[in-house]
Amino acid sequence: MTTNRQFRLAARPVGMPKPTDWQLTEEALAPLQDGEVRVRVLYLSLDPAMRGWMNEGKSYIRPVAIGEVMRAGGIGVVEASNSPHVAVGDTLTGSFGVQQYWTGPVDAKAAAAMKIDPALAPLPAWLNVLGMPGMTAYFGLTDIGQPKAGETVVVSAAAGAVGATVGQVAKQLGCRAVGIAGGPDKCRYVVEELGFDACIDYKAGDVPAGLKQHCPQGVDVYFDNVGGDILDAVLARINLKARIVICGAISQYNNTTPVRGPANYLSLLVNRARMEGMVVFDYAARYPEGVQRLGAWLQAGAIKSREHVVEGLDHFPDALAMLFEGKNFGKLVLKVTDDAH
Amino acid sequence: MTTNRQFRLAARPVGMPKPTDWQLTEEALAPLQDGEVRVRVLYLSLDPAMRGWMNEGKSYIRPVAIGEVMRAGGIGVVEASNSPHVAVGDTLTGSFGVQQYWTGPVDAKAAAAMKIDPALAPLPAWLNVLGMPGMTAYFGLTDIGQPKAGETVVVSAAAGAVGATVGQVAKQLGCRAVGIAGGPDKCRYVVEELGFDACIDYKAGDVPAGLKQHCPQGVDVYFDNVGGDILDAVLARINLKARIVICGAISQYNNTTPVRGPANYLSLLVNRARMEGMVVFDYAARYPEGVQRLGAWLQAGAIKSREHVVEGLDHFPDALAMLFEGKNFGKLVLKVTDDAH
Repeated sequence: MTTNRQFRLAARPVGMPKPTDWQLTEEALAPLQDGEVRVRVLYLSLDPAMRGWMNEGKSYIRPVAIGEVMRAGGIGVVEASNSPHVAVGDTLTGSFGVQQYWTGPVDAKAAAAMKIDPALAPLPAWLNVLGMPGMTAYFGLTDIGQPKAGETVVVSAAAGAVGATVGQVAKQLGCRAVGIAGGPDKCRYVVEELGFDACIDYKAGDVPAGLKQHCPQGVDVYFDNVGGDILDAVLARINLKARIVICGAISQYNNTTPVRGPANYLSLLVNRARMEGMVVFDYAARYPEGVQRLGAWLQAGAIKSREHVVEGLDHFPDALAMLFEGKNFGKLVLKVTDDAH
Repeated sequence: MTTNRQFRLAARPVGMPKPTDWQLTEEALAPLQDGEVRVRVLYLSLDPAMRGWMNEGKSYIRPVAIGEVMRAGGIGVVEASNSPHVAVGDTLTGSFGVQQYWTGPVDAKAAAAMKIDPALAPLPAWLNVLGMPGMTAYFGLTDIGQPKAGETVVVSAAAGAVGATVGQVAKQLGCRAVGIAGGPDKCRYVVEELGFDACIDYKAGDVPAGLKQHCPQGVDVYFDNVGGDILDAVLARINLKARIVICGAISQYNNTTPVRGPANYLSLLVNRARMEGMVVFDYAARYPEGVQRLGAWLQAGAIKSREHVVEGLDHFPDALAMLFEGKNFGKLVLKVTDDAH
């Protein structure tokens, strides 16, 4: 009798999540209902947004309830199907949760889980450039940032999953791409492997001086994943009619003190500039367009998808912590191996 | 021999401007050059934006230099003309400065000074609903705020020149208009005389509770003139796809400490909302459209233009201080009478 191991939210974290905020449970798999499929989860995506889902209160998506399996996007293979829409052996992507098996209905609209073509790219890439981070980067940049060829695009957390794709897409669109990342290794990776024009190491200190040096024509589009001081530094360098995409604020997610607002926000007034929030789920109907465009660039070798894979479901809490400590290199992915414990 | 009395900037203020930041000078009028006109200034507009012009540093317009006549918009009558484009007796509006006489060129494009029709509205209204505040309100609301009938529009400094017109125009466009103003008298004026649906007295305390009560459908458009706590309170009540027009931040202009950024700015992310700065001068080519539309509403009695007139050029420093102390009631205008001193 197969069982299913799961990470459930045990308590709402204060600041950084700690081991006792999780409960590792094991339960027998229930028989499949009509229309349902059973997916063996192969890879799970670990994302900064997860921190927000653990908080109580109104957001763009409902919080994970105490006792509920932690929400996570994943890739898996169908082991059993009572749905006419998918067959055993199909590869699916969906919000499978931090567990070994996902069981749920798959209807014609494939709202819960979508079939993917594993031949287009290695499976982890479907959680990266061809997954939520890639869709976030693509639609956030093109739809909200609206860069024009020749403009300067700056992106923070540039070595992260979203940031890496933002900069690479900006290059494909004929822009100057400048990253901001933590440490010389990440900055070297961003410039030498991903092909950004420059990368500013915020851990080395002077972000304002770096922006001045590497954005001699000012900043037209800023894709912000971090908030805090870096957002303020960029606000001080924006051009007339600049667009700032607010995608995240990882510097503020584990705050126990109130969020610090951007003190330089009046630069929006001086420069008639715009700051706008984006949530990738709003673009669900357009994911096929994103997959097609990014997939073509990926297959042509024009852009890269790099993942940092941690093996073993049981490493979920430590792996998540790596994200907030900036220790991952590339998109952080958990490979759900059959680790006994 | 006629002389010209002028207020010049003597020092850059720290915090609130003080009397010693000004120098009152008197000089003989120079003979008119070819193409120039002499305008006797009748009314001057006193605006929060003046505080910004007194600071050094990059902004949307160059700072007033030390020793220079303080910049101010005004209304005046032509007393002498060497320009083929205006005649003695014409009424002009332009950036005449805080002085009794303006002398300058008027070309075909009327870039420096524009002829107005004094029959359309009383002269002070040309510094209010038909002047910069009205243009700011009209283009900021319609072009950046883009309200749709049935939506809720909130405006701060609602009893001020810009705010009063924002709310009145919002009503004309079929929106719910909710003002925020300081004190029961201003709030009564905003609701009873200007026809807003409600007004929240921020001096009485609980702006968040007031927003909850008076914006039961949330906030779709916020026209911000003040920044600070009020901007944060509104950010906490915005709807999906809300638009925030950043027009000013009077709460922050006299700060000697750094500007406080909006701590709730991540509400832009949660709500996929937008915050965008606007500067009225960008709409210069469209002023005739604004004057026509607002003028028609004004003549029909659908909207009101209320001015608070202070008499005497010498009262300029005190009158400007009233603005930052929130003591004026309606658009603050200085009437340039021939006060001896």
